[in-house]
Amino acid sequence: MSETAIKAWSAALGASGVAADNATLDRYARTTQVTGTRPVCVLYPRSTHEVQEIVRVAAAQGVVLYPISRGKNWGYGDMCAPTEGAAIVDLSRMNRILEVNTELAYAVIEPGVSQQELFDYLQEHQTGLWMDSTGAGPDSSLVGNTLDRGFGHTRYGDHFATASGFEIVMADGRVLNTSFGHYPNGKATHVYPYGVGPYLDGLFCQSNLGIITRITVWLMPKPDAFQLFFLSVKDEDKLTALVDRLRPMRLAGILTSAVHIANDLRLLSATGRYPWSETGGKTPMPPEVRARLRRDGGMGAWNVAGALTGTRSQVRGACAALRKAVAGLGRPIFVGDTKLALAKKVARGLNSVGLGTRLTGKLRSLIPNYGLLKGFPAIEPLMGPQWLLRNPPSGPPCDPLDAGCGLIWISPVLPMTGRDARAVLDIVSPVFAKHAFDMPATFTLLNERSMVGILNVAFDKSLPEEAARATACYDEAVDALIAQGYIPYRTGLRGMPKLVQPGDTFWEVAQQVKRALDPSDIISRGRYIPPTK
Amino acid sequence: MSETAIKAWSAALGASGVAADNATLDRYARTTQVTGTRPVCVLYPRSTHEVQEIVRVAAAQGVVLYPISRGKNWGYGDMCAPTEGAAIVDLSRMNRILEVNTELAYAVIEPGVSQQELFDYLQEHQTGLWMDSTGAGPDSSLVGNTLDRGFGHTRYGDHFATASGFEIVMADGRVLNTSFGHYPNGKATHVYPYGVGPYLDGLFCQSNLGIITRITVWLMPKPDAFQLFFLSVKDEDKLTALVDRLRPMRLAGILTSAVHIANDLRLLSATGRYPWSETGGKTPMPPEVRARLRRDGGMGAWNVAGALTGTRSQVRGACAALRKAVAGLGRPIFVGDTKLALAKKVARGLNSVGLGTRLTGKLRSLIPNYGLLKGFPAIEPLMGPQWLLRNPPSGPPCDPLDAGCGLIWISPVLPMTGRDARAVLDIVSPVFAKHAFDMPATFTLLNERSMVGILNVAFDKSLPEEAARATACYDEAVDALIAQGYIPYRTGLRGMPKLVQPGDTFWEVAQQVKRALDPSDIISRGRYIPPTK
Repeated sequence: MSETAIKAWSAALGASGVAADNATLDRYARTTQVTGTRPVCVLYPRSTHEVQEIVRVAAAQGVVLYPISRGKNWGYGDMCAPTEGAAIVDLSRMNRILEVNTELAYAVIEPGVSQQELFDYLQEHQTGLWMDSTGAGPDSSLVGNTLDRGFGHTRYGDHFATASGFEIVMADGRVLNTSFGHYPNGKATHVYPYGVGPYLDGLFCQSNLGIITRITVWLMPKPDAFQLFFLSVKDEDKLTALVDRLRPMRLAGILTSAVHIANDLRLLSATGRYPWSETGGKTPMPPEVRARLRRDGGMGAWNVAGALTGTRSQVRGACAALRKAVAGLGRPIFVGDTKLALAKKVARGLNSVGLGTRLTGKLRSLIPNYGLLKGFPAIEPLMGPQWLLRNPPSGPPCDPLDAGCGLIWISPVLPMTGRDARAVLDIVSPVFAKHAFDMPATFTLLNERSMVGILNVAFDKSLPEEAARATACYDEAVDALIAQGYIPYRTGLRGMPKLVQPGDTFWEVAQQVKRALDPSDIISRGRYIPPTK
Repeated sequence: MSETAIKAWSAALGASGVAADNATLDRYARTTQVTGTRPVCVLYPRSTHEVQEIVRVAAAQGVVLYPISRGKNWGYGDMCAPTEGAAIVDLSRMNRILEVNTELAYAVIEPGVSQQELFDYLQEHQTGLWMDSTGAGPDSSLVGNTLDRGFGHTRYGDHFATASGFEIVMADGRVLNTSFGHYPNGKATHVYPYGVGPYLDGLFCQSNLGIITRITVWLMPKPDAFQLFFLSVKDEDKLTALVDRLRPMRLAGILTSAVHIANDLRLLSATGRYPWSETGGKTPMPPEVRARLRRDGGMGAWNVAGALTGTRSQVRGACAALRKAVAGLGRPIFVGDTKLALAKKVARGLNSVGLGTRLTGKLRSLIPNYGLLKGFPAIEPLMGPQWLLRNPPSGPPCDPLDAGCGLIWISPVLPMTGRDARAVLDIVSPVFAKHAFDMPATFTLLNERSMVGILNVAFDKSLPEEAARATACYDEAVDALIAQGYIPYRTGLRGMPKLVQPGDTFWEVAQQVKRALDPSDIISRGRYIPPTK
């Protein structure tokens, strides 16, 4: 079956559009999780038309397809289909930026466009527009992240909420255009997501109902004024107060960016490696080592980073309001472009006389954040997965798969209250401790009343015992969170079955829709929506 | 078939839950459009359980159901099903406010809750929370408006974007809960709309795939500072510049409310009646009469109203930015609570010495706007449909159906550019003129890069010639807008077939989903999604 399919695909895409050699299949089978799956071939379409051809062959031959945008879904399943022997549809060669509209501030892009590619385009063409970037590194796909409902750090941090006009190849090869894209000459396709009639875009996120070949992402005009704010609280217990002080600011629309609150371990793992020598080769980190590293890094137990944008006087007003809101908890540091340039200069000076290590450390952890808050893609967050590697690669952070990283994200959604943040920590902290893992954590104030907690189990894939412990830790933590009603916003292959309880009407309805639109369950079988065959 | 069904419904709901007398059926058959439909009975469920019973009987007996929330969908189809002989499911007795959460600023409500009811609750319980209201009057349903993707005037003007956690009765009687509502104890259901897996809520807007029995609407904490702004431009041609000056403010997030730009006729029709005596009984209004009324009302050709909220200093900054943005076009008037109270006092004083008519006129048109910008339900917009009535009712504005109003909305979506606003006016103005109608118009800057144009054909239903002209005007205007790519965001029964072109994959996919979820096409057959039987 798959041999016939591969022949047909080769005929449709040309020899360079299909790979089925062992080296390629091995590469696509790699995973940061404990177990992945191996595909039967990899397809590289260059156009929507070629994707239609791929789908038609798959339907005729009954081969499951698994589309990936650029395959950088580390920690959430990487490039692996839920099922063995799928044909990977690697959309990375569809990487055209089809339109950038500076008047209405949007870009129409294909799935292969990376964060860096769009960023470079916006800079080179002096568009005056900012994008939102996630911490998934410069090479990751904007479309892929949007379809997994990922998020970044700016006012447009909610990627699904700032996208419109999907082009989708359906399982039978038809092309569906959403918003007003299905009307001849539809004028508002890129600026108004809902269109008229049912709003279908949500169906195609975290699911398997079609292959998305194009979307519009909204961009932000460079604001008149920009201030990063950074606030540290020393005491671990102050997280509760921090969330409760920031919530009214977010609810009132004073804080408009996707504010991140990171613990010390998250910052440490983004800027360095696990201190094996100081810990006698053991995990988790002894409290005194952790305290010292925290102190050296100039960080608190919890560290807030966000951005204030608007007119100069609006930003000034927001700074004052923020300062007041957190009074008694900590003093926010505000950093604008001028201050940052100055601080860099000072740090260089202090270094030259041997006094600047601590300050430089702080700056080092600040600068990538500073960039992300302006939507600049950053490579630094890719350090995190290397945290426990016994033989880490040298040089700048690289693809976690190349480095041999193990990584499983745990990402529950919480109401934006200190109470809920505390409840989540109380559920997961003992689990991580039991399995001898440190727990890097962030809480992102994603919209005005909810936040996403991001915890990660990072491990060294070359050590089977550690990998087994990581899996056990993940299972226990996620099961406990779900039992308490803190459901993940997103998950990898291992987590998907955990989301589906028998007889849940939600998943039954999703399956009914799947059966209607993809009766042979050809596209991404088992991705979120349980298999229907 | 329907007799058996009515018996079964009477058994399930009790006698008071079913009406099939002629007077009731006549009342539900009324329409502000030219032609409506007559139902076979009206059902009044009091609970989700009763809605499930209703659906089961309908499926067994093959009777089409048409759910309405409170039936105030004037100008977009009123209470009329697309098909004759449907059973209306009137949800107005399901009017519980199930929860108001002041910490996270949301309310969980049933479809029968009116704007006024939620507003009163928020006031009486001193919640310190504001809601968003549409101009559809105090009695209209918040759920109904949200499901039709209606909009209001505040920062939360986009009702679908500020809702979460739907409870839906499916065609087979199952209950679907979205967001995390289908998980036992799901904590973030009311604060995070997407849940995990496909985001299904959009399916249930402007469609017919289920009966929504509960949603969460987000509320706003009363801001520290509030300023209404009001800006008039004299010259009709200045609309283009106005939109282009306001767009950067909206794109930058400086203007955050759903700014409305209304022409003189829209304001005149909200505050008075057509000047039949001055126009010799003819329409449209002669230019000199229009100019005089505009002058007397202290209004311009185009009139902008919006709100600035935030901290005091943020609002001050936004005022300054707005003033600068529109420099040369007009001077915005800013009105806060203090100023409004003062102005009322002054107006009363001026009136008492016979000098205040013009100012009072302006205040009169300002005050309802002022309220709506704070989310107060207002009755004044219900005056508009009475514009051409030859024998208008006396007293305050009432239900347009009681007054004998004819009303058909035309509501294209446009990119937020002056060019597009001009293009839409150039398409529709000649059509209205040809059919001898004045054209009240607003453009609402709904999100950061699109706007909705709202034009209405208001007519006197007692005059068949005028009704026929209204229909011809509507058809010609909508057909021309669609041909040029300006597609309506929402439509009444007459407009629905215009949205569907044969072979459009979008509607085919919608029909596939409909067949999967409601194979007998029992719920609201023909509502947006074309009949599948």
